[in-house]
Amino acid sequence: MRRALSVPLFSVCLLSAAGACLAQGPAASPSLSDPIRSTAASLRDEAMKGTGAYEIVRSLTTEVGPRPAGSEGERKSIEWGLRTMRELGFTNVRAEAVTVPHWEPGNAEGQILAPWPQPVVLLPLGGSVGTPEGGLEGEIVEVPSVEDLEKVSPEKVRGKIVFINKRMERKKDGSGYGAAVSGRGRGAAVAGKLGAAAVLIRSIGTDNNRTPHTGAMRYEEGGPRIPAAALSNPDADMLAAQVASGKPVRFRLLLGSRHLPDAQSANVIGEIVGREKPEEIVLLGCHLDSWFPGTGAVDDAAGCAIVMEAARRIGELPQKPRRTIRVVLFANEEFGLSGARAYAEKYTADLPRHILAGESDFGSGRVWRIDTRVAPESLPVVGEIAKLLAPIGVEPGDNEAGGGADLIPMAPARVPLLGLGQDGTEYFDWHHTANDTLDKVDPKDLDQNVAAWAATAYAAAEMSGDFGRAPQPEQPGR
Amino acid sequence: MRRALSVPLFSVCLLSAAGACLAQGPAASPSLSDPIRSTAASLRDEAMKGTGAYEIVRSLTTEVGPRPAGSEGERKSIEWGLRTMRELGFTNVRAEAVTVPHWEPGNAEGQILAPWPQPVVLLPLGGSVGTPEGGLEGEIVEVPSVEDLEKVSPEKVRGKIVFINKRMERKKDGSGYGAAVSGRGRGAAVAGKLGAAAVLIRSIGTDNNRTPHTGAMRYEEGGPRIPAAALSNPDADMLAAQVASGKPVRFRLLLGSRHLPDAQSANVIGEIVGREKPEEIVLLGCHLDSWFPGTGAVDDAAGCAIVMEAARRIGELPQKPRRTIRVVLFANEEFGLSGARAYAEKYTADLPRHILAGESDFGSGRVWRIDTRVAPESLPVVGEIAKLLAPIGVEPGDNEAGGGADLIPMAPARVPLLGLGQDGTEYFDWHHTANDTLDKVDPKDLDQNVAAWAATAYAAAEMSGDFGRAPQPEQPGR
Repeated sequence: MRRALSVPLFSVCLLSAAGACLAQGPAASPSLSDPIRSTAASLRDEAMKGTGAYEIVRSLTTEVGPRPAGSEGERKSIEWGLRTMRELGFTNVRAEAVTVPHWEPGNAEGQILAPWPQPVVLLPLGGSVGTPEGGLEGEIVEVPSVEDLEKVSPEKVRGKIVFINKRMERKKDGSGYGAAVSGRGRGAAVAGKLGAAAVLIRSIGTDNNRTPHTGAMRYEEGGPRIPAAALSNPDADMLAAQVASGKPVRFRLLLGSRHLPDAQSANVIGEIVGREKPEEIVLLGCHLDSWFPGTGAVDDAAGCAIVMEAARRIGELPQKPRRTIRVVLFANEEFGLSGARAYAEKYTADLPRHILAGESDFGSGRVWRIDTRVAPESLPVVGEIAKLLAPIGVEPGDNEAGGGADLIPMAPARVPLLGLGQDGTEYFDWHHTANDTLDKVDPKDLDQNVAAWAATAYAAAEMSGDFGRAPQPEQPGR
Repeated sequence: MRRALSVPLFSVCLLSAAGACLAQGPAASPSLSDPIRSTAASLRDEAMKGTGAYEIVRSLTTEVGPRPAGSEGERKSIEWGLRTMRELGFTNVRAEAVTVPHWEPGNAEGQILAPWPQPVVLLPLGGSVGTPEGGLEGEIVEVPSVEDLEKVSPEKVRGKIVFINKRMERKKDGSGYGAAVSGRGRGAAVAGKLGAAAVLIRSIGTDNNRTPHTGAMRYEEGGPRIPAAALSNPDADMLAAQVASGKPVRFRLLLGSRHLPDAQSANVIGEIVGREKPEEIVLLGCHLDSWFPGTGAVDDAAGCAIVMEAARRIGELPQKPRRTIRVVLFANEEFGLSGARAYAEKYTADLPRHILAGESDFGSGRVWRIDTRVAPESLPVVGEIAKLLAPIGVEPGDNEAGGGADLIPMAPARVPLLGLGQDGTEYFDWHHTANDTLDKVDPKDLDQNVAAWAATAYAAAEMSGDFGRAPQPEQPGR
């Protein structure tokens, strides 16, 4: 998963003409009847007793494994998605073509050459160019953050290797990520403009394992393109300790990364078709791709398992819900939201009938909070749904949900968003590393997620009225 | 560190002639005077306020790093040891030649080829031969333990790759290690005799990181020599999950390991020379070598820092203790106890005047227990020492201490042994992995270790009388 910034609620409404605000009102005042509440509670309680979600994670991680955009693993994951969706009883199962960038990590080697030679463990950042074939060498210039780097004079950096030594903080809601990740995304662009030869970052992660955290970086259009890599936290400590000696620190970096021609991928979609309003969609999303080092268990096999299993359980009720529940396994979230953009484009005309969308993309930690971004007039029914989730430890949140990175391209259509906030205390120990493997997933935690998603999605698909349209965020995503 | 088996106390005495038992009695009844108790308590309390031990670990791990037997790192560690001992004020600082085996790990690659191709993370076991240059391929045969492997018929194994899937249990005293490690030491010998092409083991470690645990293995003299590697725990899970599918599992292994001619190394020794009985020795040991993947912070820079700092603090008292405190940084503990054997041989004539020996080789976890192996008649003074340690959380233990692997070769001389048992709950998360780095060491925990060693070593070096000679263990070491 990726996260952008939180945005204030109601600002658009306060700043807009009254008519625009009225237009955000729901089509009909939404509410939950007693039978809806009872069925949702039953979905919740049955899921808490045990679900098939862990088996879905096992299957994807074991039988496919790593599946970055453009890779053979990605191709297999699409076959897996289609097969699994069909086996689980979904309708209208299909792969919808998406063009994705294709980047290969290649080999990665790093050594401190002086003052005290030490091998270090690093990974290329996603999208980095490679080094020259024999690698490159340079003196290290350490900066505390990319923001500090922007203030450094080019003479201090030219021809050197910039080391951005910013440590991510551990937080339950994962908010330490947004505070630290800018150096990963922009470090190479900023350092390149200053004439640096390469950039190293301290991994954006909360662990102290020698398993570096990769993740997307971007060059500026037409700007310099220098190699960029992440050191594991212990290796960043080592480099910092050598820099702290005051002696010049020399480093050798070799990256075999390379860009290849764009590749064909697909969003994989399956539905529980609504019995009364099949054209109205409750969208449950996740992403099928992963980064390359691990098997993508927490990012995002867990999310796919949660929403697939939640929808499957709704589909097995004695009658289908009034609206359609559409599960979308998005292609290439990690390296450019390709599937999300393709979906928003293909379904532009249908997005006004997407009455709610949510994405599970934060591992398998328990849901502890429900947030939305819905028309304010529909907040009472959100409160009713929140009450349904209280018995499994979920608190009411706010109306500023981002809903997940793959929902960002739907923002112009003001699709109402659901965010089931998970405990992310450990998530960034594993995120984008070789350590993102099946053993990090707790089956009971997955079940609780399924319980929350199943109850919520069912209520949304069955209730009278809808959530209106979402207030327009100033900056989409969270 | 390595550990052998616990052995029962007094068994030798019970089985021996009465005369042999009497001969184990102390030369004079040992006791602690009030001034000794007071000075030992002061050493303890001052150390708890903060010591230089962490700086010693930082220096060895940062300025030397990995230092396996025969490597360039080992050579640097000897220079480091001599320099650091002199800087800390030790006397008679010297390097004593030790011949060590020289084995290089080389590259290590593994892939599951079928039914579901996946790359895996593995390391060669210490001493393994390499594979043919292009690697080798074979079908996986999984067994739960090396003991089970011994019962398998050769037809089931011939030409295949044996996978020993035994999981180590987490225990405060580290006793899960002894219960699991036999597959690492003997797996290749047993599998080779059955005609296997190679052996893979689940890492002997308690973590779930993709950082495999290496460690020593041995072939039988004249027996087959097949390649042996350790999978990280998540990779062992993956392999087991594929085997559990019931489909044939094919694996490719490439190891570039190789044996080189023996190399010259050294034990590094420094002393606080005793003021009255300089020829009587209290030996404080650790080992200077490490395995190759990490910087050997917990195994065993921590131990060296603890005993060096403890002895240094005793040496800075207004007067030296009555006996000599000798700190020995043993060469090549990990791959054959080379330094320990050389020491025991060189000092055979002096071992009867080694009145106590202990080794710190279990990371930086707090000392929680004091064990000894001393003449039973001297147990009262052990009780007095234990009381000195009670305020820092140390409980009295038993008289069955092993004292540390490097003390095993002294067993024939019945040198009395001291074991300060540490909390090893996390030790086997890092042991013999790339994750054995400085960040795993807590400075306050190190200080508590220094407090315990300083108080104990001082009391032993200063007290009247001694510990007699140790009961002979049936099987040395623990």
